[in-house]
Amino acid sequence: MAYFDAASGAPLHPVARQALTASLDEGWADPARLHREGRRARMLLDAAREAAAETVGCRADELVFTSSGTAAVHSGIAGALAGRRRAGRHLIVSSVEHSSVLHAAEVHRAGGGSVTEVAVERTGSVDPSAFAGELRPDTALACLQSANHEVGTVQPVARVAEACRAAGVPLLVDAAQSLGWGPVEGDWSLLTASAHKWGGPPGAGLLVVRKGTRFAPQGPRDERESGRAAGFENLPAIVAAAASLRAVRAEAAGEAVRLRELTERIRARVPGLVPDVEVVGDQERRLPGIVTFSCLYVDGETLLHELDRAGFSVSSGSSCTSSTLTPSHVLRAMGVLSEGNIRVSLPPGTREEDVERFLSVLPEAVAGVREKLGAPVSSSPAPAREEDETLVVDALGRRCPIPVIELAKAIGHVPVGATIRVLSDDEAARLDIPAWCEMRNQQYLGEEPTPTGTAYLIRRTT
Amino acid sequence: MAYFDAASGAPLHPVARQALTASLDEGWADPARLHREGRRARMLLDAAREAAAETVGCRADELVFTSSGTAAVHSGIAGALAGRRRAGRHLIVSSVEHSSVLHAAEVHRAGGGSVTEVAVERTGSVDPSAFAGELRPDTALACLQSANHEVGTVQPVARVAEACRAAGVPLLVDAAQSLGWGPVEGDWSLLTASAHKWGGPPGAGLLVVRKGTRFAPQGPRDERESGRAAGFENLPAIVAAAASLRAVRAEAAGEAVRLRELTERIRARVPGLVPDVEVVGDQERRLPGIVTFSCLYVDGETLLHELDRAGFSVSSGSSCTSSTLTPSHVLRAMGVLSEGNIRVSLPPGTREEDVERFLSVLPEAVAGVREKLGAPVSSSPAPAREEDETLVVDALGRRCPIPVIELAKAIGHVPVGATIRVLSDDEAARLDIPAWCEMRNQQYLGEEPTPTGTAYLIRRTT
Repeated sequence: MAYFDAASGAPLHPVARQALTASLDEGWADPARLHREGRRARMLLDAAREAAAETVGCRADELVFTSSGTAAVHSGIAGALAGRRRAGRHLIVSSVEHSSVLHAAEVHRAGGGSVTEVAVERTGSVDPSAFAGELRPDTALACLQSANHEVGTVQPVARVAEACRAAGVPLLVDAAQSLGWGPVEGDWSLLTASAHKWGGPPGAGLLVVRKGTRFAPQGPRDERESGRAAGFENLPAIVAAAASLRAVRAEAAGEAVRLRELTERIRARVPGLVPDVEVVGDQERRLPGIVTFSCLYVDGETLLHELDRAGFSVSSGSSCTSSTLTPSHVLRAMGVLSEGNIRVSLPPGTREEDVERFLSVLPEAVAGVREKLGAPVSSSPAPAREEDETLVVDALGRRCPIPVIELAKAIGHVPVGATIRVLSDDEAARLDIPAWCEMRNQQYLGEEPTPTGTAYLIRRTT
Repeated sequence: MAYFDAASGAPLHPVARQALTASLDEGWADPARLHREGRRARMLLDAAREAAAETVGCRADELVFTSSGTAAVHSGIAGALAGRRRAGRHLIVSSVEHSSVLHAAEVHRAGGGSVTEVAVERTGSVDPSAFAGELRPDTALACLQSANHEVGTVQPVARVAEACRAAGVPLLVDAAQSLGWGPVEGDWSLLTASAHKWGGPPGAGLLVVRKGTRFAPQGPRDERESGRAAGFENLPAIVAAAASLRAVRAEAAGEAVRLRELTERIRARVPGLVPDVEVVGDQERRLPGIVTFSCLYVDGETLLHELDRAGFSVSSGSSCTSSTLTPSHVLRAMGVLSEGNIRVSLPPGTREEDVERFLSVLPEAVAGVREKLGAPVSSSPAPAREEDETLVVDALGRRCPIPVIELAKAIGHVPVGATIRVLSDDEAARLDIPAWCEMRNQQYLGEEPTPTGTAYLIRRTT
């Protein structure tokens, strides 16, 4: 059994567990009370805040504990936007932010604010100049993750922070994926994080608001945590979060080297082991533990189950694994293949032999799924039959990866220069057909609406 | 050492502790994921929901877990108001609700909604007919706690729920203080609660929305918990909350009888042991473990510290113990004395000998504080000196309980029928001077603004 889904939530670090159980006895009382149990709780809370602030690299009075990373993001964005109301109502986010950021942006837009989503390169990274180019006099806030949660790409936070600072715009950094690895570089104004991502307990997040940053907490007022996080403090989780962040950081340098080598193995070897695979994300500027790839002609959910049966827990951004049946917004923003998508995120302590075993079972798992789906076996198109000058592939009502499989089968039946129209009503086709063309060196001509869905036009070029 | 502040937060029930530590190992993964760790987490979450729903008396799909009782209240009120937007924007709350309810009402008012605060009787109870009388065609929501957190008074929820149901208005019941003792009676529509109040862990609350209740979640959207509680589920806390609620309920009947007898002792004996005390709250319709009283001529904070030194942890609604230096809004709404206020809230398992010891140390603790403050020793006014027909007592700049102490000393120096003007800029005086008049059978004439504060007018009648 190997758990390779640390980016969703890491198993509890032993220090977190120890701190949590210890503070169940010492830290259950209300830290706002004056009696000894309350004072003891207050001391634990203060100490946790000092420790977390030191690890983050901020002042203790700049940091509050929230009930989750999502709560930190929601409170941070709403408070920063309200605090800068006089400057304007323009919000900048990257298109690959965590859904909590994008959903907060939706609320802002629904309330009459304007939102710019900065596009990313095919690696998942924003271009700092492009990001800076969106800064306007009425920009109230900009948001950029420190690193992407689905593909591991590290963002150029320091350069974006510099541009924001020069424009007088606060930058909020969602550091959920990276804080365990090290402090966030650059001159940011707000920072959010989530303890369970670094091996801390669930139920604790961080919100840091640098002194001098205008901030007006939204929602019903509450005296706790400087009015920035309502509700009774979850002290055992807070104590465990602070303690485990320190512990994880102490081990970070060594683990980073080790995990980076392991993910590099996957990055380098998967394309050779499995035909028709696209490894996505930045090869250099990336988190140590995450590697993501997509397999043509594969149904992500089935592949997840096959790997689960083989003892590997991974996650996927394929549409079939989401409740909304749309591919991950990150893969979509990057313009990469989403079908058969697998994210491997290694927790600290991952053993080399588990990674090797993963590499040994992956090819068969992918092949098995492809066989079941009737995917084309060879990756080079069959010789063209001259008689078929154009072809319509009707994949209406068929879900990912069937439309791409049908396209791949059909391409061999038309001559070079001919056009194929793939009819599909599956959301994933919009991303995966162009991605397939890119991988196969075929020409993607564009899409046209039809009464029953969309027609995707492809010209055979090789 | 005796902890008598269970209403702020109870020590962890052994079952909560056990369930929490067990689920740290089993329930750290993301229940939205498809791998085995995710499925295991999902099973734990579903089982906890079933168990909690059964104990609350609702369907599992009506109940979501929130990060705290406060989060449940905020989400519940905002969602219910938005869901009933078409009916109107009128909200009814009692004046003794928990601050989380009142602060949510403030936000509603600030956003253009209207709010009616229903007054309470001197016992702290709403009058069901008065509550029902506030229901209007544009009333979107009504809120009533099941029992008061500061004085223990049980509210007539079933009768209010009946009136609300007849008017087609949903009733939200904040059951934070009572859910451990039993299900909430009556035909309510929404219910909120907080696990750490019943001996569960911090970091978990409940929000129940009955089927058929219009509800539109507010804030950034999130797929977890039916969109009603954003952020990664705190599964260990949730499992512990559900398990401990069951355990606490199993012990509730026996503990209720025992604690009620112990608090009844305090209610009955304190007025005999300590002169000039007002025991507040309803004598019959009250929670088993809470008893609250106020001591004239006493500084609440000093009394808390004296009791703390004697080994008793209690809380206080006196102004000097709040960061805002205003007396508890509950005591204010009841119109009772707030100075020297002490709330004793006994956790399950409280030993009889601890209560007896409390009763034995209380008189000396109160006497000590009074002596330090120079409070009047006798409770009957000194014979009047005929020469003083009117008297001005200047207590400007003096904090509770000094204005009342000065008034009590001065009353002996004026003849029956004469008037005293007490000048004070302390918020507590507004509540405590009329309350003192009521306790002493003196006539309170009212207040007048002055350039430096307020003048309170009292006529000596005995």
